[in-house]
Amino acid sequence: MRVLGIDCGGEYTGFGVVEQTPDQQLICIDCGAVHLSPRDPLPRRLKRIFDDLGAVIDRHRPDMVAIEDVFYAANAKTALKLGQVRGVAMLVAAHFGLEVAEYAPLSIKSAVVGYGRADKVQVQQMVTRLLKLAEPPEPFDASDALAIAICHIHTSSTLRAQSAVAPR
Amino acid sequence: MRVLGIDCGGEYTGFGVVEQTPDQQLICIDCGAVHLSPRDPLPRRLKRIFDDLGAVIDRHRPDMVAIEDVFYAANAKTALKLGQVRGVAMLVAAHFGLEVAEYAPLSIKSAVVGYGRADKVQVQQMVTRLLKLAEPPEPFDASDALAIAICHIHTSSTLRAQSAVAPR
Repeated sequence: MRVLGIDCGGEYTGFGVVEQTPDQQLICIDCGAVHLSPRDPLPRRLKRIFDDLGAVIDRHRPDMVAIEDVFYAANAKTALKLGQVRGVAMLVAAHFGLEVAEYAPLSIKSAVVGYGRADKVQVQQMVTRLLKLAEPPEPFDASDALAIAICHIHTSSTLRAQSAVAPR
Repeated sequence: MRVLGIDCGGEYTGFGVVEQTPDQQLICIDCGAVHLSPRDPLPRRLKRIFDDLGAVIDRHRPDMVAIEDVFYAANAKTALKLGQVRGVAMLVAAHFGLEVAEYAPLSIKSAVVGYGRADKVQVQQMVTRLLKLAEPPEPFDASDALAIAICHIHTSSTLRAQSAVAPR
């Protein structure tokens, strides 16, 4: 299974492609962040996200997209900005016929660090270890995106294991 | 000048194409609303907006897109939902190389009704009158979208008149 995790943000939108091999190893296929210039008009910034994430999907052909679910934001203005980027990220997935799984921040941190209130450095360190990377992924948006992809893989594995056990 | 106004919403997203003729008449070229089923997954709903608004632009070739600016929402959850639709609407414009003008709700109502706190029925009535329509445009999302397009045309006319006067 190959999963694209997307970490939406106003200035940086992180992406991370993780593959789980048949022997359950996790491999980082690609990661990075789309940097948007605050000087560009918003429609152009959104097109940049659409084009760049589309290029990532085109290059790595993930089976699924995973994205952070957002329940609250500091204020409505922040939520609106985040929503604009999130809408475009989900559209890219739909454009390529991919399903989108959403995970709460707490679930993502719990799945990766084992602690729902972990900070970005802890997430980055655990992502580096789980994917056996030589260097921590930079920026934090990229490691957060990898964490979202890992969370989806862990959750799917658990669900598969449960459904395999259920009929007994 | 031909303008596409877009009124973003969670369930209905209105659109209205208005043309200003050389003799300053306003003509309604098309209007309607994209209805999204709450049963569909969000990415599919966003793709529907992208595809349908794209078809409107493709059919009527507006020179410009006008959209409502949002400063506040009832809460962060509402703002996030609205942001998702708004992001996709702006992306469609950028996809076709069109610029996007944003107008505050108060400016739109003032430009059309002459009163910033006008309700949807008053906006619908004035849009019907200004565009000389036989029937009021339905649903309200469609008349709101036409109002946004009219607001942009009025504002541009005023700015052109001012710049024509300025050098004297």
